[in-house]
Parts: sequence; structure tokens; C-alpha cells
Amino acid sequence: MIDDAILRSLVVPNDKKIVLLVADGLGGLPRDLDAKTELEVAAKPNLDKLAAHSACGLTVPVAPGITPGSGPAHLALFGYDPFKYQIGRGVIEALGIGLEIGPHDVAVRGNFATMDGSGVITDRRAGRIPTERNVELCGLLQRAIPAVDDVAVTVAHATEHRFVVVFRGGRLSPHLADTDPQRDGARALEPQVLFEEAERTAAVVRKFVAEAGRVLADRRPANAVLLRGFSALPYLPSLADRFGLKAAAIATYPMYRGLAKAMGMAVLPTGPTVDEQFAALKQHYREYDLFFVHVKKTDSFGEDGNFNAKVEVITDLDLALPALLRLEPDVLAVTGDHSTPAVLKSHSWHPNPFLLHARTAQPGWTEEFTERSCALGTLGRFPATDVMPLLLAHAGKLAKFGA
Amino acid sequence: MIDDAILRSLVVPNDKKIVLLVADGLGGLPRDLDAKTELEVAAKPNLDKLAAHSACGLTVPVAPGITPGSGPAHLALFGYDPFKYQIGRGVIEALGIGLEIGPHDVAVRGNFATMDGSGVITDRRAGRIPTERNVELCGLLQRAIPAVDDVAVTVAHATEHRFVVVFRGGRLSPHLADTDPQRDGARALEPQVLFEEAERTAAVVRKFVAEAGRVLADRRPANAVLLRGFSALPYLPSLADRFGLKAAAIATYPMYRGLAKAMGMAVLPTGPTVDEQFAALKQHYREYDLFFVHVKKTDSFGEDGNFNAKVEVITDLDLALPALLRLEPDVLAVTGDHSTPAVLKSHSWHPNPFLLHARTAQPGWTEEFTERSCALGTLGRFPATDVMPLLLAHAGKLAKFGA
Repeated sequence: MIDDAILRSLVVPNDKKIVLLVADGLGGLPRDLDAKTELEVAAKPNLDKLAAHSACGLTVPVAPGITPGSGPAHLALFGYDPFKYQIGRGVIEALGIGLEIGPHDVAVRGNFATMDGSGVITDRRAGRIPTERNVELCGLLQRAIPAVDDVAVTVAHATEHRFVVVFRGGRLSPHLADTDPQRDGARALEPQVLFEEAERTAAVVRKFVAEAGRVLADRRPANAVLLRGFSALPYLPSLADRFGLKAAAIATYPMYRGLAKAMGMAVLPTGPTVDEQFAALKQHYREYDLFFVHVKKTDSFGEDGNFNAKVEVITDLDLALPALLRLEPDVLAVTGDHSTPAVLKSHSWHPNPFLLHARTAQPGWTEEFTERSCALGTLGRFPATDVMPLLLAHAGKLAKFGA
Repeated sequence: MIDDAILRSLVVPNDKKIVLLVADGLGGLPRDLDAKTELEVAAKPNLDKLAAHSACGLTVPVAPGITPGSGPAHLALFGYDPFKYQIGRGVIEALGIGLEIGPHDVAVRGNFATMDGSGVITDRRAGRIPTERNVELCGLLQRAIPAVDDVAVTVAHATEHRFVVVFRGGRLSPHLADTDPQRDGARALEPQVLFEEAERTAAVVRKFVAEAGRVLADRRPANAVLLRGFSALPYLPSLADRFGLKAAAIATYPMYRGLAKAMGMAVLPTGPTVDEQFAALKQHYREYDLFFVHVKKTDSFGEDGNFNAKVEVITDLDLALPALLRLEPDVLAVTGDHSTPAVLKSHSWHPNPFLLHARTAQPGWTEEFTERSCALGTLGRFPATDVMPLLLAHAGKLAKFGA
């Protein structure tokens, strides 16, 4: 990818509008029935017509063969080197349940677990306790441990046995190893210090774990906590600083709203449907240069292995699209952050279908918006980190390099 | 290419089988007769059918426009940066004739040459003496010069006027310039020291050359030796260390067997035909994760400019293929290391046709296994160093990057 300082030096702000529509986990793989992918099965006349009049290609999310989590996949799309800016599990999980993470906080993912009388973990997931029980236990912990010394503690439930702890206050460091031994039949680990600066944080975490053990003592099977993925929000230069962009996110899931905030975007209020997301876009259209519209359900149904439901989300997106097209954004790109083929029930490394519609876009041989057809586009197969420079260029926001 | 440490951290070994079938110098160029390449002329229904159901593309061997030797081309295919890990001519030639090269040995390629009474080289190839004569002369040198000081000397014949010398013992350095002046009518050069550490090696080489001259004095036209490509084996982290792969090579030519050993592969016994290579694959199929099957004759006939013979090798490979397909490897890739177009009679820089067959592979518009048709695949044009991450991904051997 191009050197950040060079790119920044070429930026020429203007009032052109860019919309980046990301259907999470959009790309798929052929199903056995008819050897067609989700995009090939979905009726989507608007997207197909758009693709035929766009520069199309396939984006490689973070590197060939590498399956990205949602964090690195989105960072790459917005031009952040995903290997340079790594966001740890604790922060991702915290953002995912809507917690605010400050620049000096440390977040960590927790499991409720079962420990026997001798301190050995017999079930790392406490029998996958129901979420309602988790809510109750997190409430108990939160009330019993509002702080450790002068460090404020937030305990927030996720689903089943999963929760998040955020430590805030003073000079905290995320450089601690997991207490989760990652297998049953072992003891929970001490939070080992990876860099000396984390000594104080380790002391706080040790006290939290000990106190949590006392609070949970008679709550078997959930009588212990295991922590993994201590992390802090990395410093991300904002889209405003990097590209002179006033950017806004229209996303329904907390994690993507959190990621957007970390990149310096405004997060706009929106209802849960794509129609409502496009209505929010219309309402705020004059206020921003770049809009990130995030559609989550393509990924969710892909993860579930629900091919037909993923097809339906694509169809619905296509039905909603005219409302977006009527705004006539100067540059409109539609893509995924990574593939989530229903046949795999998971994220994958496959390249994402990508279309870029703009007055300056050169259409190729793409006739419909599918993985296969985008392979015939003029953009070829290219790294997702090239998307932002392309969006800026087509919006006339980049000056010539060199004389 | 992705950072090695990151890639390594994602590896999750499993029992999936990967077969990488390399037809050396496979890619070609159109001949005048009908504007078709070797692959376009060859009848190869099995490869064509496979390609139509595979993710296809074109691999760039080491860099656009750069014609690679067999060493860098193979290193790239196995995920070693060919600019970082360079293997010199002496080592390549030594491996090529089946010599074992230790980590501290220095190997060099030799020519028997003709020198006139005044010390001027009149024929750098001694009239291309027949190989039988070469065998005899190497035996003579070996008996006369088993060692120089405390450095053991191995002299081994190749074909015609070509031989190899390996120096072993003590602190040797390959940083010496060639003694071969590369043109007739010049004197043989002194072995110039390129780094000071090579002083002692230079002294040994000078003594060897002088002694060889005495031994060969009355053997005109082969009355002198010229040396070029002093080199040592670079340290290559093994495929086991890098990717957790138990790998085996099924190659008939010593050089490829030597290269495979240098990458930490087992080298399996095999007969000379492709049928026998596939039989060896079947016999050892349960024992390894990755099989490197190397077919040499595509390159040999390309080098000879024998278009039809190269076509025939491809046809034979295709006929043999069903035995490989019956093993149903989880991931099968077929490609070349570099192109050797018969019309050029040499290696070339052109990208190689590449197919990857796996349950998770996304077919594109490729209908036959040719250079042109692979250009319509979903993998596009990509560096050969991306092949290993792709093989690992499709074998389910890579965990997700980031949360």
C-alpha cells in the first residue's frame, strides 16, 4: 500500500460525496445443489445493473489465504494496514456489546468456568450457562467489585458464558498474558506481565480474579472466571487527519459503531433495517463527505450456514438500493469486508466482490454483481487497503503525484 | 508477502493432504504455425476438466519481467522470498548431480577448458568433451587432490565439460569471484576475495587450481579448470517449522531433490516416469501432509526448443493424472515454477498457469488449463509466494487473523 504520508500530502478536500456500502461477509462459495453462490442465486437487478456500469474487481481482505476477523477486515477497507493496527479480542468484544472504550482503558474477554476443590478448571465454559444466568452473575460481580483500588471496573455480559471486563483509571497497560489456560484439566494462570509497565495492571487483575472467585464460590458450575485477550484501543489516526474526510457511520451493530468511532467517524442514529439506514443517510447527506453503511445480516446468516436467509438479505438490500441511488453519490462502492460462505459457516479468506460506481469508473466485462463476474472487471484482484485511495481518486480528492 | 512470523502464528496443523504438482517450465508462448502454446496444442482432457472446477490464475514467478532460475522459482512456490534466500550456482549444480551439501561447505561449478602454452584460454568448454572423458578426468583429479591442507575436496562430474567441486572443513567462505573469464582469448582469473573472511578459502582454491593444472597438463584439450559460482547453502527455515507441514518430495532430478531437502522435505524413492511418481505418492500418502511432485521434462524439451516433445510430456502427464485424482487430495494445485516457451528455448518471466482444486475453491471462467484461460480465473495474477498461504488456507490449516 502507498505510504501514508505521501497519500496524505496529495489529499485535496472537496464537497464530493462518497458512500461505501459494506455488506458484511458478502462473498460466498457455490452450494452443492446448483454450484451457485449466494450472490449468484439472489435476485438483485439493481446491483447487477450497477455492476455492469461500474469498475469491478475482487478485493483481498488482508493477505492471500488469510481469513480476517471483522476488525482487521474493516481497518483494511478504510486504508489502515491491518498488520500494523491490531485490535485485541478484549476491545473487539467490548465494542461488540456496545461498551465505550477510552484511550487508556484495558478490556478483556471473560469466560465463566467451573473449578474443582483443588483449583483445577474442569469446564472452561461452565457448561455454557444460559445467557440469563450470565446476566445475573455479571450483575453480582459488578455490584461486588465496582473498583479495584482506584481502578474502575465494568463487568458486562455477552452471551452464554462470555462476558467482558473493562478496567479504567490511571496508567493501565494491556501487556498481560491470558489467565485462561485454554484447556480443561489445568489450573487458571496468573496474569503474567509481558512488559514491565503492566505490573500495576497485573496487580489489579489478580485482585479482581481473587475477589470474583470469592463472590462466585457457591455458584458452581460458574464458580471461576478466566480472562483472555487483554487489550487497549490502538491509536488510529482519524479519517479526517488522514484524508480530510468528514466521515459518518450508519451501522446497526455495536462493534462496527465502535470501530467507526475509533477511526474518528461520527456514528449516526438509525433504525435496524436497511431502508432505515438509507433514510438516515438521506437525512444527514449534506453533513458528511464519506458515509460507511454497514449491513450485518449477510455475515450473520453466513455464519449460521443459512444460505437461503443470506440470499434473502441480499435481495432485500437490492430492493432498498434505489433510495440510495436517488441520492446520486459521486462515488459509490459496494463490497464486503471478507467472505462468509454459508457452506463454510465461518469467515473465509476468499476475495470480495467489489464495485465502484462513479463518472470516472471504467466498466469491464462484469455483467452481474457476483464473485465470478467481478473477476472480469477492470480492477482485477487487489488488496482491500487500496480501496480508500480509489474512492478518493474517483471523488477528485487526490492531486497529481509529481510534476 | 505476509510477514513470516504472523503467518506462522496462524498455522493450525491437521491431517488434510496437499499435493503441489509442478511441471517445470510448463507455461509457453504461441508458435507461428497456429498461434497456439504448448498447453493449447496438448490434448489434456483431465487437466482441462480439473481447471474448469478449480480456482485458477497466473502466478508471477519472482517479480514481473524477471526470468528466474530453477532455485528461486521453486523457493518462491514454497513461500520463501527468493530475493532473501539466494542459492548460488555452485550449490545448485552440486544438488543437481546429487551431492550432499553441508551447512559450512562451499560448492563451485567447474568447466574443463583448453589453455595454450602462454596461459590463455582458447576454449572455455574444452571442445565439449564427451561425458565419459569428463568422468575419467574427475576421477583423476579426485585421486590426485583428495584434500587441500585440512580442507576435504570432492570433485564430481556432470555432463560434457561440466563438473562440481565441493570444499569442506573449517571456516570456509563462498565470497570469492569466478576464475572463469567468461570469454575465450583471456587468461583464467585469480579467485578474488569479495569479503576479507574468504582469504583462507581463496588460498585453498588457488592451490586446487594450480594442482589441477599440473594433473591435467598433458590432457589437452582438457588441460585447465575454470571455476564459477562459489556458493554455500543458505539457511532455510524448514516447512515443518514454518507451516507445521510434514512434507515429502517426489522428484526424479537430483537438483529438485536437493532443493527439497534444503527446505526440510523428505525425499521419496521413485521411478523415472510420472506413473511411477504417482505410485510413490500413493504408497506414502498417509505419511505426509504436503507432497511436492516435480515433473522435469516439460522444461527440458522447452529448453531444447522441441515444441512437440513438450506437448507430448503434457499429454502423458494428463494421461497419468487419474491415478493422482483417485487419491482425492484435499487440496491439489497444478502449476509450473516458471515458463520455458519452446519458441524461446529458455526459461522466461511469463506468469505460470495455476489451478487450485479444493472443496473451498471458487471456479471462475477458466475452461481449459492454458495460460490464456487461467487469466479468466478468480485468483487473477498473483505472486508465486502467495501459493503456500493459499494451499494452507484451503486445507484448513490457518486460523483467523484478529477478532
